Amino acid sequence: MPLMKEFETLGLSYLDGKLRVLDQRLLPHKEKWHEVESIEHMIELIRQLAVRGAPLIGISAAMALAIFASRGQVQEQALRLRQARPTAVNLMWAIDAMLSVEHTKEALCQKAEELFLLELEMSEKMATFGASVIADNEEIITHCNTGGLATVGIGTALAVIMRAHKLGKKIHVWVDETRPLLQGGRLTTWELAKASIPYTLICDNMAAFLMAQGKISRALVGADRIARNGDFANKIGTYSLAVAAHHHNIPFHVVAPSSTVDKECKSGADIPIEERASSEVQGAQGLIWSPAGCNTYNPSFDVTPNALVTSYILDKGVIKAQELINSCTMPKE
Amino acid sequence: MPLMKEFETLGLSYLDGKLRVLDQRLLPHKEKWHEVESIEHMIELIRQLAVRGAPLIGISAAMALAIFASRGQVQEQALRLRQARPTAVNLMWAIDAMLSVEHTKEALCQKAEELFLLELEMSEKMATFGASVIADNEEIITHCNTGGLATVGIGTALAVIMRAHKLGKKIHVWVDETRPLLQGGRLTTWELAKASIPYTLICDNMAAFLMAQGKISRALVGADRIARNGDFANKIGTYSLAVAAHHHNIPFHVVAPSSTVDKECKSGADIPIEERASSEVQGAQGLIWSPAGCNTYNPSFDVTPNALVTSYILDKGVIKAQELINSCTMPKE
Repeated sequence: MPLMKEFETLGLSYLDGKLRVLDQRLLPHKEKWHEVESIEHMIELIRQLAVRGAPLIGISAAMALAIFASRGQVQEQALRLRQARPTAVNLMWAIDAMLSVEHTKEALCQKAEELFLLELEMSEKMATFGASVIADNEEIITHCNTGGLATVGIGTALAVIMRAHKLGKKIHVWVDETRPLLQGGRLTTWELAKASIPYTLICDNMAAFLMAQGKISRALVGADRIARNGDFANKIGTYSLAVAAHHHNIPFHVVAPSSTVDKECKSGADIPIEERASSEVQGAQGLIWSPAGCNTYNPSFDVTPNALVTSYILDKGVIKAQELINSCTMPKE
Repeated sequence: MPLMKEFETLGLSYLDGKLRVLDQRLLPHKEKWHEVESIEHMIELIRQLAVRGAPLIGISAAMALAIFASRGQVQEQALRLRQARPTAVNLMWAIDAMLSVEHTKEALCQKAEELFLLELEMSEKMATFGASVIADNEEIITHCNTGGLATVGIGTALAVIMRAHKLGKKIHVWVDETRPLLQGGRLTTWELAKASIPYTLICDNMAAFLMAQGKISRALVGADRIARNGDFANKIGTYSLAVAAHHHNIPFHVVAPSSTVDKECKSGADIPIEERASSEVQGAQGLIWSPAGCNTYNPSFDVTPNALVTSYILDKGVIKAQELINSCTMPKE
């Protein structure tokens, strides 16, 4: 008998009592699903980026904990899951929520389902609030992948784009390929093609030149963690895009659910930045094009200061940095 | 009997009466030399980027014309060579210089040798002037490849770095991989490793974040064409780097020989920008990672306005935009 209600999203499913994840490393050429076998297995899938996207990581971890937690080891297993990746706070948020209930299979499954539904709901709200910001005939640039693949709902930044398109607004999307792991080139292109939304793929270093040519009207990105002053971490290259948008006076928006706002985190300086393997920069997709053993620097994320953000499109509405700061201030402060 | 003095540079040689070019598409993993067979062959090698780098393209074209020009067809053959690539002005400069002499084998060979020696001399001078700008313990970022592979001498921007290192200045180089064709990741890394200069390879979208972290003290880039107001075209991604340097108050220098200054060109708006094949953006090195037939934009160069340039390091000295403007003004204007 299944432990909870069945579901099927773009990258995660629970069907016939089995939890499965789509291997996002192999997209768009191959759609391979892994049946998750244990908590350790899910940790590996997250670490190796088969499962990626801040909101999806959080829900996937919660599901794995609900399904595979062993009596008496829930706390310890949850802690290991919580440490699978350091930058996205959604993972910590989901695990903390799971640990707030009784450590029984039933309570954990119920909480995981609740978090799943909450993410769906937040995704819908972001899409609705965000679409109201988009005018007709916009040329929108986006970075990394923030669509259905990154969440269990319709996404964050990409959900706004999808909703605007669905509402009949004429838009065209410029997709940053997002080196080194090419989430834009591989995943965002795949989602946009599926949705029949016109898009053009570019290398990350072309965005500023497009802006100088007047070809971009707006930038929309996701976030892996938003500090309570509005500084935020997101996929490497986001800061470069924000600086270019600022230089060209182009509106720059961060789209994220409440689960991405970390009230414990004072500013961007407090967000831990994950560094990943050299091989990711030495080449791509298993191919190495630089000299053997070449020295690299590979921060997986960067931090963009609040001053470069036009507004935050959250599930609670579209707000400015100062409103975010006010809403995050603890009463005793 | 050889037509002119033998020579051997990093990417071009004339030995035993044969003109050979190193195939830069295959570096760093394979060092393959092509024996150039005709003017058409050289045009193909330039178009396909086996031969690349503005100064090297100019001299290679001049050499091919000197060696393979047919009596009575020099003008027409020169014109075809001149059109091999549209953005770098060094090609036009070299061909125009060739056409200014008598159209005999002897005169053409003599002129080609002259241009070769002139490039060598300009490269040395840029290195000397440029190195005087570099302080000890600098962290220098560079884009694309501007070393011995891009010229017949020791290079432009990379020559400055090499000279500073040779003079005993302690420097470390951050190398932009330079998507889509990865001249930084494949060629600049290869040259720096050969010269035992410490370097770190990064993806282009990481540069701004490095700057925010205070890890970069200076940016040095080459140029494919400098307009007489100081706007310049260079490898795509240069403008993005210039905007980031400007935002962080980091000195940004263009290093180029006089043959790169186009006095006919009023401003950046007049520089033609070459667009190349979609496949270059859809993947890399023959590998395609984006969805089949994915729409792309692939400008091979971008234009950086004079306002973002701290100084121009030319073979005539280190000058500001206004001095360049003054030196380019025709007497009758």
